[in-house]
Amino acid sequence: MSLSIHSKDAPGPAVMTIAGSDSSGGAGIQADLKTFTALGCYGTSVITALTAQNTVGVQGVHSVPPAFVEQQMRSVLDDIKVVAIKTGMLSDAGVTAAVAQGLRTAYSSSHMPPLVCDPVCVSTSGHTLLQPDAVDTMVHLLFPLATIITPNKSEAELLVSRFASGKSSAGAIIDSLEGMLNAAQTLLALGPRAVLLKGGHLTVSSAEVEMFLPSHPDLSVERDGILGPNMEILLVTEEDPADIDLVVDILCQYEGPTTLFLRPRLDSTSTHGTGCTLSAALACALGRGDTIADAVKFAAAYTHQGIATAVPMGQGHGPLNHMHPVLPRSVLKQVPPSVRWRHNPHPFVRMLIQTNADVWKQYVQHDFVRQLGQGTLSRESFVHFIKQDYLYLKYYSRAHGLLAAKSSEFDEIASSAEIILHIARESAMHKQFCAQWGVSPEELENTPESPACTAYGAYIIDIGLRGDASRLLMALAACLLGYGEVGLWLKREAARPESWVKLEGNPYLKWIEDYSGEDYQRAVKVGIERIEAMAANDPPSLKRLEEWRLVWEKCTLLEKGFWDMAINMS
Amino acid sequence: MSLSIHSKDAPGPAVMTIAGSDSSGGAGIQADLKTFTALGCYGTSVITALTAQNTVGVQGVHSVPPAFVEQQMRSVLDDIKVVAIKTGMLSDAGVTAAVAQGLRTAYSSSHMPPLVCDPVCVSTSGHTLLQPDAVDTMVHLLFPLATIITPNKSEAELLVSRFASGKSSAGAIIDSLEGMLNAAQTLLALGPRAVLLKGGHLTVSSAEVEMFLPSHPDLSVERDGILGPNMEILLVTEEDPADIDLVVDILCQYEGPTTLFLRPRLDSTSTHGTGCTLSAALACALGRGDTIADAVKFAAAYTHQGIATAVPMGQGHGPLNHMHPVLPRSVLKQVPPSVRWRHNPHPFVRMLIQTNADVWKQYVQHDFVRQLGQGTLSRESFVHFIKQDYLYLKYYSRAHGLLAAKSSEFDEIASSAEIILHIARESAMHKQFCAQWGVSPEELENTPESPACTAYGAYIIDIGLRGDASRLLMALAACLLGYGEVGLWLKREAARPESWVKLEGNPYLKWIEDYSGEDYQRAVKVGIERIEAMAANDPPSLKRLEEWRLVWEKCTLLEKGFWDMAINMS
Repeated sequence: MSLSIHSKDAPGPAVMTIAGSDSSGGAGIQADLKTFTALGCYGTSVITALTAQNTVGVQGVHSVPPAFVEQQMRSVLDDIKVVAIKTGMLSDAGVTAAVAQGLRTAYSSSHMPPLVCDPVCVSTSGHTLLQPDAVDTMVHLLFPLATIITPNKSEAELLVSRFASGKSSAGAIIDSLEGMLNAAQTLLALGPRAVLLKGGHLTVSSAEVEMFLPSHPDLSVERDGILGPNMEILLVTEEDPADIDLVVDILCQYEGPTTLFLRPRLDSTSTHGTGCTLSAALACALGRGDTIADAVKFAAAYTHQGIATAVPMGQGHGPLNHMHPVLPRSVLKQVPPSVRWRHNPHPFVRMLIQTNADVWKQYVQHDFVRQLGQGTLSRESFVHFIKQDYLYLKYYSRAHGLLAAKSSEFDEIASSAEIILHIARESAMHKQFCAQWGVSPEELENTPESPACTAYGAYIIDIGLRGDASRLLMALAACLLGYGEVGLWLKREAARPESWVKLEGNPYLKWIEDYSGEDYQRAVKVGIERIEAMAANDPPSLKRLEEWRLVWEKCTLLEKGFWDMAINMS
Repeated sequence: MSLSIHSKDAPGPAVMTIAGSDSSGGAGIQADLKTFTALGCYGTSVITALTAQNTVGVQGVHSVPPAFVEQQMRSVLDDIKVVAIKTGMLSDAGVTAAVAQGLRTAYSSSHMPPLVCDPVCVSTSGHTLLQPDAVDTMVHLLFPLATIITPNKSEAELLVSRFASGKSSAGAIIDSLEGMLNAAQTLLALGPRAVLLKGGHLTVSSAEVEMFLPSHPDLSVERDGILGPNMEILLVTEEDPADIDLVVDILCQYEGPTTLFLRPRLDSTSTHGTGCTLSAALACALGRGDTIADAVKFAAAYTHQGIATAVPMGQGHGPLNHMHPVLPRSVLKQVPPSVRWRHNPHPFVRMLIQTNADVWKQYVQHDFVRQLGQGTLSRESFVHFIKQDYLYLKYYSRAHGLLAAKSSEFDEIASSAEIILHIARESAMHKQFCAQWGVSPEELENTPESPACTAYGAYIIDIGLRGDASRLLMALAACLLGYGEVGLWLKREAARPESWVKLEGNPYLKWIEDYSGEDYQRAVKVGIERIEAMAANDPPSLKRLEEWRLVWEKCTLLEKGFWDMAINMS
């Protein structure tokens, strides 16, 4: 949902690609134009060479005279202000020199916009796309102008072996994270402001990354599509991130930190034009003013999703799905889920939790929870909490009645009824706790509501009366998911050796067991699936998404307030 | 909202363009690829020539050898199944012959997909894009293969003067609808299955069209963006369609009716690549299986919107906005409304009424309304109606209370309150009517509700309780807008000479005056603006749009049922 730049910009900021044409539409200026279009930019294009190609290979190349390449650049740049430029296949030394000359002429008296140089040398299918003597021209004339260059493993090996001086040039095979980092630093010395060394042709295990990081404390790390912290409720149904093979890209900057970008490796043949797509998306992001690191993060995520949501085409390596930011998700349903979301089966809930990870953490790892896990929570606080929670559950079950009243399908109505019955059982547990701690049923029923309880309870009823079923579902989520998270977190922590969580003799053991137990966790799973289905079946507009997000945030805050109330006896 | 084919098809049905490259990105394969992408198709491209051009003109052309054009076609068609093909600039006779040969080779043993041939000869800026001797080659080799050819005025003139036999060839200037029709029929004889003669370079008045049509009773007529019947409520704030200059395209088919496509002329310089865009959209629509007439309707509407929503770019004729089907409308807000919706300031309400025009007509031109206008309605029916309408208004005002409760902004809440006060005045009018017709306040208050009244009243309350404010607004619209329409229609009909509507001595004159009067019509206008703002500020997903539409349809049916009830005394 954050992959489009439409919401930020008017249509039409123009960008330019200088590259070859791919008749089959998956790479070259075609991939660039599709990427620009999907990302809300206006695409212009200077063609450096025509290729007759398809998903299997390159069947022919027709070169374009250097003077005509420069003429195309003049026509565009004399008339249209472009905010970023990318170069791809440059074919030969003459064209490469003409491109450098064209840029110098156009920007002799004005500031040049960001330039992304994708040093395309050989196609995935093995076809030479840049004559060997042109590599020198590219390095000497274009790299110094480039904001960023984006070599893959084999391009980096070729460039390092050719241009690096001293010992690092010997044996330019890149086969480790250390090797990638050295190569990227070597290439940075050739003049660009940044180097993104792409690791798509290298498989790295999570374990290797974990071993590498401690010896490089200065590196920044960006994880994309890998489950974050405080998401035990998702972890139980997803692959453990520790078991996933990763792709690692390394960004070295002349000014700014070196960053590792980690994401799960995708098993896909839809990779034709991956490099073109990434550099085109980079140009869009730099053109709208992103920092280099932000632009890389954006472009890599866009490209990754393009592979993840592609449908096979042709006999060989098919194209990416360039249009995913603007396609309704209902269309993506036609892509098998195993391909689509293999590493992210709960994209919406994941996004929801990540969107206010701080408040979520303050809620699910609240002092109340920690003291409860240690068994040190005061009896008064717990009793105060249980009494108020009992009162809250009345609001919460009524809200599910309202959700039933707002539903259209019998299974949705029945699902609400089942949750109401579940809450009834939960409230019986509260009564039992109270009895155990000396609170009579009469005292429980006559307990005055605390402001924190009224605020939260009345808020979800109000949301239910004001909005539709989807917004109410959002208001009900923080309680359901958060208590599930707390239960699983305490359980996992308790299982560690010498854990701070004490189960033995803990007066609150039953509470921990109830929320980490099968019955409650089943309800959490059903809830997560219902929320995912809601978002997938009727993808929200940006405005609705913001409404949902605000409701979610408000409820996590109210949950935190509820536990503050218990601690403070307020 | 009907301009995308995403909702119908999975991403990826491949289409192919065979055309020139426009470095500035507004025409040629660039316009085609952007159109394909925006319409959810996967674009492949065979480049016939490179141009160095911009919005001002063509600065250079680099030709491509015919053999390499054929090689590109082979690479694509050997590997990827395309569902439609379009041709644009073919440059010279060699390339044109190679394209024909390429098609024959690829489809020697299989059925050729739909072929759209845009007979590009000269650029808008006056540059020759097809050598004169190549015109013969195109006509003889490609036209017979074409599903449809799409000449503009000057291309049609050139083709008619060259190929027509007999008297019609003399003086090939096309300057009237009659001339267009003759030229299209002449071109049809050259072998394509259909001819779309584009009238963008000819301005036609509505009056000219109205004079032309009666003498051609066999012609079908498609109106797009021109206010339809039974929309008096919109007409009062919009330009009278009779005063609008039109663009007329004529479609002649080998099999099938001849159709005139009418739409308002746009005053815009964003027209670079209009013909490329239209033919590319045609290919998409034919590729998904549309009939020729449906495909033309779709492609013309897409192109028209592309011009209407474009933002100026470059020093000359800028490109269209190809992305409008997938851009959030919030982005379109940055396009000045005068440019955007000059001829369609109320796109959503217009669409709503058109979506079930039949039921809408049965409602607003109901027998009850006709008899009321004639003054022949039975006293019993009217009294029965007024009593039930009085009861209905209680539901209706309560529903506005509910709308206030569901609103977020003070002005929305206040607006609901004002409407409630308006309804209170309306109900006082009902009491007055009743008194006048001998019904006491006690009798009125104690009238049992008819099933039609309960159905309608309870339905809007139910929608209000179930959904959000937007759905409730939909449920409230049919009553507000329909009575406004009825009032204006009766008033306009009454103004005609020898009208069937009798105002003089009509016992229901006050009713007619109330609903056609300023006070009520002001409420209608406010209501229309609020609905438009709702749809523009948070454009619905296809699923929500369908929900809204169903509520609107249900309410127009319930309104019709209400008047059935009055007539039948049920």
